[in-house]
Amino acid sequence: MSELIASINGEQIALHKAVLSVQDLSVERGYAIFDYFKTVHGKPIFLEDSLDRFFHSAEKMRLRIPYNRDQLKVMLNELMQVNQISESGIKLLLTGGYSPDGYSISTPNLVITQQPIKRNISLEQQGLRLVTFEHQRQLPEIKTTDYLAGILAQPYAKEHHAADILYTHNKLVLECPRCNIFIVNAANELITPGRNILKGITRKHILLLASSIMTAKESDLSLEDLYHAREVFISSTSKNITPVNAIDHMTYGKEPGPVTRTLQSLLEAVVYGNV
Amino acid sequence: MSELIASINGEQIALHKAVLSVQDLSVERGYAIFDYFKTVHGKPIFLEDSLDRFFHSAEKMRLRIPYNRDQLKVMLNELMQVNQISESGIKLLLTGGYSPDGYSISTPNLVITQQPIKRNISLEQQGLRLVTFEHQRQLPEIKTTDYLAGILAQPYAKEHHAADILYTHNKLVLECPRCNIFIVNAANELITPGRNILKGITRKHILLLASSIMTAKESDLSLEDLYHAREVFISSTSKNITPVNAIDHMTYGKEPGPVTRTLQSLLEAVVYGNV
Repeated sequence: MSELIASINGEQIALHKAVLSVQDLSVERGYAIFDYFKTVHGKPIFLEDSLDRFFHSAEKMRLRIPYNRDQLKVMLNELMQVNQISESGIKLLLTGGYSPDGYSISTPNLVITQQPIKRNISLEQQGLRLVTFEHQRQLPEIKTTDYLAGILAQPYAKEHHAADILYTHNKLVLECPRCNIFIVNAANELITPGRNILKGITRKHILLLASSIMTAKESDLSLEDLYHAREVFISSTSKNITPVNAIDHMTYGKEPGPVTRTLQSLLEAVVYGNV
Repeated sequence: MSELIASINGEQIALHKAVLSVQDLSVERGYAIFDYFKTVHGKPIFLEDSLDRFFHSAEKMRLRIPYNRDQLKVMLNELMQVNQISESGIKLLLTGGYSPDGYSISTPNLVITQQPIKRNISLEQQGLRLVTFEHQRQLPEIKTTDYLAGILAQPYAKEHHAADILYTHNKLVLECPRCNIFIVNAANELITPGRNILKGITRKHILLLASSIMTAKESDLSLEDLYHAREVFISSTSKNITPVNAIDHMTYGKEPGPVTRTLQSLLEAVVYGNV
């Protein structure tokens, strides 16, 4: 494969040379937002949703994106043109910029990177185990780069033979560090938490797809609801719909449930064009 | 002044050329810790305390500092030699390193920067205003680079004509984003919160100094305690002891109180060698 190219403030540069000053507010104060989408057969998936959320996050964090939406799209297209990676993940990162006093927001730096990704189909078929972890993310509805708790808890997940942690707070189920969670309850309703989480784009499209075939809603989920669910799955750009086989002391079965399988097929058609 | 020099993984480099990959975990996931001390007349102040805390933060965040304490001191001395800045602030920053999967901790990068600082003596004499702000920092006792809430709340402070916010949570007083808080109560005791905060090094030395002349203790502080205090001040490496004139609707007087002035003199002697 040829060298990966990134873009910093609109200028293309080899990824391994793409750098930021140690005085950038992302480095000094963890102050940055990002967004992420993938390409399938060379085409961006849910790009408009990703850009919507990117502008939303920037506004909430008082970061002025120094480009308009069309300019961003041109940059993204130029990057995809030069990299020519059919199956990839593309990240837009916006930092607080070089801060003269090391604390105040300055002119943001925009970094775009593209890297090949490989879909883990066997995981989407076989599912994974989660372990609950008490934590409420700060500014949960903004896609900041703050993943301190999630990264720090990785050994905790491993100790519990889990692929990842599932945040809970005050006995409510929230989200995984990088995925949303859904359950199918005894009444065959699809439910996903609706507040104090990052609202994923795959999550949004699953709700849309599901609503044509069943009751699908955002609602607070208790730990009881979770443990008594018929089916559980997580969703993200990378993991699509991945079944959850077990959480804590509860097991849900080794095979994806019927609702999970149906939704996987629907999402598959939209994202990968396979029916 | 000649060009400022920084150090990255033990190699000196011009500060304006000191950079990290956009794939460093500090940039991608806000995963980094740091510590900070100042030099007065060219000599480091409370260096051992700062190194203690730096190693503590690194361990808690599962970051392995690729140097021992003596090696760090050599690096710091070499940097101070080359920069020759009598009155300066020196920051040690340790990141999660270049992460191949964008999430797992890797070999940390160590960045040391030194910059001139100027003491704000008039602020230490005249004091400042604070406004309370409901927030509990995550991992409060670790000096991470997470300042999202503090930076985001700057306009809130300005709207309230305050120099900064003061974090409170569940009606307990905590800390400012970059300072600790002390009160003198009606019984003439010096009190500072003892948990769910970052324990500052200036704070530690104030407690030590104060304990020889009065009751000085760590204890939960309610908003009531704060509002009814005789004197209030904040402490930090940069601000030393800076009196607080007003918080929210409460004013404490325009002049520093007698205890504040006495402690300022004691700290002055230790830090600046002036009596």
